[in-house]
Parts: sequence; structure tokens; C-alpha cells
Amino acid sequence: MPTFDPSSERALLDDLRAVLGSNKVLAGPSARKAYDCDAYTVDKSEPLAVVLPESTTDVQTIVRWCLAHGVPYTPRGAGTGLSGGTLPALGGLVVSTKKMTRILEVDLDNRCLLAQSGAVNKRLSEAVAHAGLHFAPDPSSQTVSTLGGNIAENSGGPHTLKYGVTVQHVLKVTMVDPLGEIVTIGSRTENLPGYDFLSLIVGGEGTLGIVTEAWVKLTPNPVKVETVLASFPRVRDATQTVADIIAEGTIPAALEMMDRGIMKAVSLAFGLKYPPDAEALLLIECDGAPETVAAEMDTVTRLCRANGSLELNVAQNEAERLKLWTARKKGIGAMGRLAPSIVTQDGVIPRSKLPEMLDFIAEVARDAGVGIANIFHAGDGNLHPCFYFDDRDPDQVRAVVAGGDRILQKCLDLGGSLSGEHGIGVEKLDLMETMFGKEGLVIQADAKRVFNESPLCNPCKVLPNQKSCVEHRRRWRGAAW
Amino acid sequence: MPTFDPSSERALLDDLRAVLGSNKVLAGPSARKAYDCDAYTVDKSEPLAVVLPESTTDVQTIVRWCLAHGVPYTPRGAGTGLSGGTLPALGGLVVSTKKMTRILEVDLDNRCLLAQSGAVNKRLSEAVAHAGLHFAPDPSSQTVSTLGGNIAENSGGPHTLKYGVTVQHVLKVTMVDPLGEIVTIGSRTENLPGYDFLSLIVGGEGTLGIVTEAWVKLTPNPVKVETVLASFPRVRDATQTVADIIAEGTIPAALEMMDRGIMKAVSLAFGLKYPPDAEALLLIECDGAPETVAAEMDTVTRLCRANGSLELNVAQNEAERLKLWTARKKGIGAMGRLAPSIVTQDGVIPRSKLPEMLDFIAEVARDAGVGIANIFHAGDGNLHPCFYFDDRDPDQVRAVVAGGDRILQKCLDLGGSLSGEHGIGVEKLDLMETMFGKEGLVIQADAKRVFNESPLCNPCKVLPNQKSCVEHRRRWRGAAW
Repeated sequence: MPTFDPSSERALLDDLRAVLGSNKVLAGPSARKAYDCDAYTVDKSEPLAVVLPESTTDVQTIVRWCLAHGVPYTPRGAGTGLSGGTLPALGGLVVSTKKMTRILEVDLDNRCLLAQSGAVNKRLSEAVAHAGLHFAPDPSSQTVSTLGGNIAENSGGPHTLKYGVTVQHVLKVTMVDPLGEIVTIGSRTENLPGYDFLSLIVGGEGTLGIVTEAWVKLTPNPVKVETVLASFPRVRDATQTVADIIAEGTIPAALEMMDRGIMKAVSLAFGLKYPPDAEALLLIECDGAPETVAAEMDTVTRLCRANGSLELNVAQNEAERLKLWTARKKGIGAMGRLAPSIVTQDGVIPRSKLPEMLDFIAEVARDAGVGIANIFHAGDGNLHPCFYFDDRDPDQVRAVVAGGDRILQKCLDLGGSLSGEHGIGVEKLDLMETMFGKEGLVIQADAKRVFNESPLCNPCKVLPNQKSCVEHRRRWRGAAW
Repeated sequence: MPTFDPSSERALLDDLRAVLGSNKVLAGPSARKAYDCDAYTVDKSEPLAVVLPESTTDVQTIVRWCLAHGVPYTPRGAGTGLSGGTLPALGGLVVSTKKMTRILEVDLDNRCLLAQSGAVNKRLSEAVAHAGLHFAPDPSSQTVSTLGGNIAENSGGPHTLKYGVTVQHVLKVTMVDPLGEIVTIGSRTENLPGYDFLSLIVGGEGTLGIVTEAWVKLTPNPVKVETVLASFPRVRDATQTVADIIAEGTIPAALEMMDRGIMKAVSLAFGLKYPPDAEALLLIECDGAPETVAAEMDTVTRLCRANGSLELNVAQNEAERLKLWTARKKGIGAMGRLAPSIVTQDGVIPRSKLPEMLDFIAEVARDAGVGIANIFHAGDGNLHPCFYFDDRDPDQVRAVVAGGDRILQKCLDLGGSLSGEHGIGVEKLDLMETMFGKEGLVIQADAKRVFNESPLCNPCKVLPNQKSCVEHRRRWRGAAW
């Protein structure tokens, strides 16, 4: 394989434009700068160019061109990822799916649709709203994040508890593999025989090929939705309520928890009031047939009261419902009121360890001398501790990075996991060996090789110690801090 | 690697007994005969011996011994599989998990337990019944089939519609890989980062290693269960009812359909009566909190009536409920009343193609000159056409095999799949290329090689054209027919 020689940049770009069409190649300094990271801004690395394919065959042309010239490439959706998955780690091309937004086929009878991977999550639901259907995965980024990005990260959202993560909603994908071949994986019906690769591709963080199109399942819109916001004097009362609701066999559509830090931020930003003694909020949403929802809400409110809730606000209409959701949907944004910078972590613990974990997070915040507020998918045990601090102070930045590592290590110690839904990317590479062990990483590398023996396709992600990545990593880190 | 020489049988067995202990080795003619197939009896092949490990390290000893002597081996649970997955295709050892039935740890707080792979499915639920929990996958074989077998086949059951198949209930497995190493895969919390292998192992049909222990999720027992059996004058009325129930956002715990052939068999066997004009039965079960169940049953019965149901029987107590389940649970067994032999097929189609598919199956039965009755998981589009015929007539046997292939081919033509829950085994090898294409099979083989480059671990399953299997296959087929 030829090696990419940065000194031949101009000749390479001329050749790329000739092959792909110059309207699909961006190589100016502002484009390079704009695509040097995603929403994880700790590590940065500029690409040689950004390419904008419009079809699967365009993507194939790009991958084959990269193979012919030894140029690395990194796929990218909307760039909302939180672990650096779209960082062009070794330079080369960023393959943006920005122009691949078409919905190609809708099959209402079997409730599925085929879309290009650059289609925005929310657009899929809008396209079938007339038929009372929607695409269930609902990451908070859904108004901008793409189907391809959701597939790469196996995205979840507040409604994951009832409806599952992205892998449970993808039937079939078309992708360009790292050899430049177009392959399709999966079937329009579920539970395929043979070895299950769809579960490798979905959640593969774009390291096994570039997904260009996907058939996804559509979910009927609930006939009725009811929402309640409950406040509690102690975090333990809220976590006990979560346990009791699930133990009684009720799976709400959403079951989200927020702590005092979030309440403070939201009060400052939007003037919302919560009971002064409240230490935790639970946002609970039930959906389905009207009779079912009424019944589930009875159960939920009964259990909130039994656990000593201070206040129960049931939304009487859609406007009130959206207001109740404010703390959850805008909580992290509102933290801008508390400090200039925020960093959102992502970890998972067994549900029973929630109180212990929250005590530990408070201790980390004290030790680090920064603030941490907590929002989490309580039903899943998926935590999002949000650090708020001043990134102009290098000591605080170091304290935040170290504190994040302590929290993730604690997740592992409690029998949990490094990441619930934001991926490993480049951010959590160093902790992969702690989680999987040396042998586990060997198996992981073997699995990657099924699809990807190439050092060109999205290098330096998910697996630590990839050849040619270690040195570069030091460079990005150095540049960023 | 040494090659297994059948002429050295006695020396091999002596060595095996010395290494493993003679109480764990069965090699008499009756043992060999008893383990020459599973519930798919078309192909047969006797093992050299059956070994009965009691622990993970016993299994490791066996696998290492097989590697040292070039002896093939095939894992086996209860032998209830329907596609020949436990056939010792090239002889060698059958590794039975019959003595590995212990439940090793129960974690009620996080609702999961650790069991050996030979533990019987039903036993897992019994062990936690006092805490109001159960293991959700409920294949019809659950009173005998094992956790390991359920993992290998990614088993479903009538309650799959609401609760999902086995892969959604397995958190972590310990297995002995084909190199003889003990590996653990997964975590006690869900949605692990990194490449997802658990989804390769679960449903891998025991070709990627021998699972010895697994952590599985436990599901709260529903507080209330309600069951209704509805009859319809036309199959299309029943399928429309299924579509309407799901379209309104109700997911019953079970939604099973049976046709006239099943009714006839059950009437003969158990004296149960159905309306004379009924062409289809729907068995619908709702479970959850009492208020929710009442609400769902209102929806379900309303939609049955709207689609012209002839009769609605709602169970008033547990005895009546079990009676309503008779047609579903005993329907296939009852077909013994119609003919000396039955063969149950397993395929999947998009739900909207159900009426077309049932017409086609009736045509296949006419052409083949045998009977076919249909039981299926209507909510999933997973069909089980059951041929009834006389296996003493070679023409009928050939017609059944050919008819089965026609039905599976039609499933593929309609955009469906070769198997919903019974696996490929040896039975459906010949259709794998039709489903996946030549290139798809190359990727499948690559995935297998991640764990299994050995021709010794469960050879001749899932992937067609494995070296040394083709010739042998002809032999089994010849012997059986």
C-alpha cells in the first residue's frame, strides 16, 4: 500500500477533485479548521480535505481513492459525538454525509423505511408522522444528529428504557467496507440466522466501514402521553422510587433523574421553581393506549408518594409537558449559568449502586475543586455527571480530566461500564485495557479485522495502541492543552 | 495438528478416561446411539464418546485433549434443537452439559443470576420465584432445554413479542474457546462499549466455543395476566386483527395464531370445541399492572370484534387460562392424531405478507400430497408450518423435504429469513448461499474465524462447504434415507 506523503498535498487534492468532482471537495483552511474535532473538543487534528459524497458509489470512489493513495479517512455525520469519534486522527479525508440526506423508500405496511445515512434523525420521524409512526431512538441531539451517527454510536435517549437503543431499530445496512467493496448486512425481517454482524456494525463507531444507507424500523406513535415531574427530599428516595416502579413491572417511556446542581442551573436560566428542600427530581413519562397510560400513571404517582415525594406535577397539556421536560432537555445547556465550561461524562453502573455512586461523585467534585451536576437515565443506570468549571484555568482542566477518569474507574469497580451511549472514540482509549484486559483487547482487535485490516479507515479509535496512532495522540493532546 | 485416526479408538478412550475420570466418559453402543442426533432426526452420526464435564475447567480439559489428539467435538444441551445443531457431524466427542446445572450466584438487587450452561431454562425461573422474578425467554421446550442451548440458538418463545429473544437477556458469558482458552465476554451492566461479541456468541449455534456459565437478566413477574382466545371466519381477519393491535401501540405479552389444521388436531386429541366456521384462532395474552392489563384487554377485545371475531373466550381463572393455551402448547404434539410423522419448519416473513404466505403454504401442501398445519408467532411474522405425513413412505418424505425448501425459498423471496429461532444447524446449510450470497458467506466465515479457526469445534454447522464436511454429509443423508 502506498504511504500518504503530506508534501504532495496539492497534487493529491487535484487528483481527488478530478476523480470526485470539485464541488464535492472542501480543502480551504476554514473547512479544515471546522472539521478538526466533534463535540469532544479536547483532542483536535485537521484533515487534508473534507469530501461530500452524494451516494454509495461516491463513497466507494472515495474509499478506493484513499486506498490507492494511502490516505486515511474518517466518516462523519453531524459531528455531535462526545468522544472524538469523528476526529480525523491521522489527517487525510473527513467523509461527511451532509449531502446524503434522502429517504429512499417507505414501507408503511411493514413499518420500516430506507434512508441515506446522512438523514437527520428527526427528519425520519417527520417523514412518517402522517401515518402515525416515528423512528424511536431519540438522542438529545436528534434535531441535528444523523442516522449514520446514531448507528455508529448505537445511540440511546430518554426513551431508551422502553424502546431500546439504535441496534434494536436497525434492520439492514449498506456500507462501503475498508477494501472499497459495497456490502449489505441484515434483512428487512428480524432475528436473522447466521453470525450477527449488524450488532458489530451498529455501535462499531464507524471503524468497520462507512454505512451509506439503512433500513430502520418505525414505531407507532403512542395514542396518549402523560408526564409527571416529582421532587424528593433525598436522592435515595428518588432511586428507591425508580426501583419500585420497575419492580412492579411498569416500564415507563422515560424515567430520568436530575440532582440539585441541575435544578440550580435551570432555575437561574429559566426561572423555574422547585421545592426548596428538593435534592432530586424524577421526570416520568408513560405512553400507549389511553387506558394503559392512565393505569400506569396511577401506579407511578402512588409509588412516588409512598417514597415521600415533596411535589408531583402532572402536565395537563402539551405546553405544560414541554415545561416539565425543560430540566431534562435544557439542563446541561443551562449549566452555562454556573461556569464558562462544561464536560459531560457517560458511564454505567448496576442500578442498585446509584446512591453509592452519587456520594462518590460528590467526593470527586470536592477533591477536584469544581462543580458536578448529575442528569441520568435512571432506569438504565446510565449516568451523565456534568463537570462545570473554567477552562481558562489549566489546573481546573487537569482536575476535570482526572476526576472524569476517577468516575469511570469507579463505574468499572462497581461492575459497570465505561460508556453507556457516547462511545469510546479517542477519549476513553486509555481505559479500554482496564475494562477488557489485554486478552479481551486481542479479541476486540480480531473482530475489527473481520472488516477492517486497513490502517486507513477511521484509525486510532476504540482500540488503544494502534500502530501510528500513539505518537500522533501525544501531538493532539499537546496542541490542545 | 494431529489427525484423528478412528482405528486408534480404544487407546484414545483409555487416554480420555485417564485425563478426565472414567465417570465422565460414556462410550458404550447405547450412549453412542442416543447421542447421534437431536430433535432433527433426518441426519444422524454417532460420536466416539459422550463426555460429561462438571465445570469450566473440565470443559477446558476436554477441548485441550481434543486439540492434542485432533478429535472433533460438539457441544450439547438437552438435544431439543430442531436443525441438527448438536449432531456430532464428524464423530468425535459430544460434550454434554447435563452435569453442569448449578445456579452459582443470584443478585436480586440488580435482577440477574449466574448459572452453569446446563441449567434447565425453567429451573432459573423457579430459583427466583420467591422474589417475584423469572427468566423471560420461554421456548416451548423450556421444561427440559438448557440455558446453554437457548444461548446457542438465541431461543424465543410465545412471549418473545413483548420480552425479546435470548440475546436481550444475557449479560455476560464464560466460554472455552476453540483454542482451549477460558474467556469471558460481556458485563453485568448493559450496552457495553467496544465491538459487540455477545451478539455473535448468542445465536452462534455453539460454533464459536462452548459456553459454560452465563449471567442472565431476571424479569419481574407480572402482577396480573389476562388471556383471550378469539376465533375468526377467515385467516385474513385474524392477521388484520394482529396488525391493528400493534398499530394502536399495544404489545401483548403473547400474540399467537393457529389455523384449521391445528384446531382439528387439538379437537381430536383433547375434545376441545371451536366454532365450526372458524378458520383461524388468535391467542392473546396481556400482562403487567392490573390497571394496565384491564386497559389492554379492552383494546384487544374491541379490535377482535371490529374484525369480525366469531367467539371470544376470556379466561376467568388459571385453569381456564391453561385450557386456552392448549391449542398453542400442545397443538404440534396433537398432530400425531393426524399422521404418524410431523416435521416443523421455521421461517420469517414481513408481517404484511402473512395472507399471501398462507395461501402459498396451502398450495405446497396440495402439490406435495401431504398435510400442513400452521402455528405461528403472529406478532413477529415467525411461521411454523408443520407437515404431517407418513415417514414409512419414501415418496412422502421426499415431498416433505422438497416442500420445506419451497416454503423457505418463498420466505426469502418475500424479503424474509430462513430461520426465526431454530437455527441453521445442518438442516438449512444448502440455503445459506441463497440468503447471504457468496460474498456474504465469506464475511460469515471471517467472523467465525475470529473465535474459531479450528476444524474441530462443532464442525459442519451454519456455514456450508466446510472442508471435510461435504463428503460426510452425503454419508449421513444416505444412512438416514
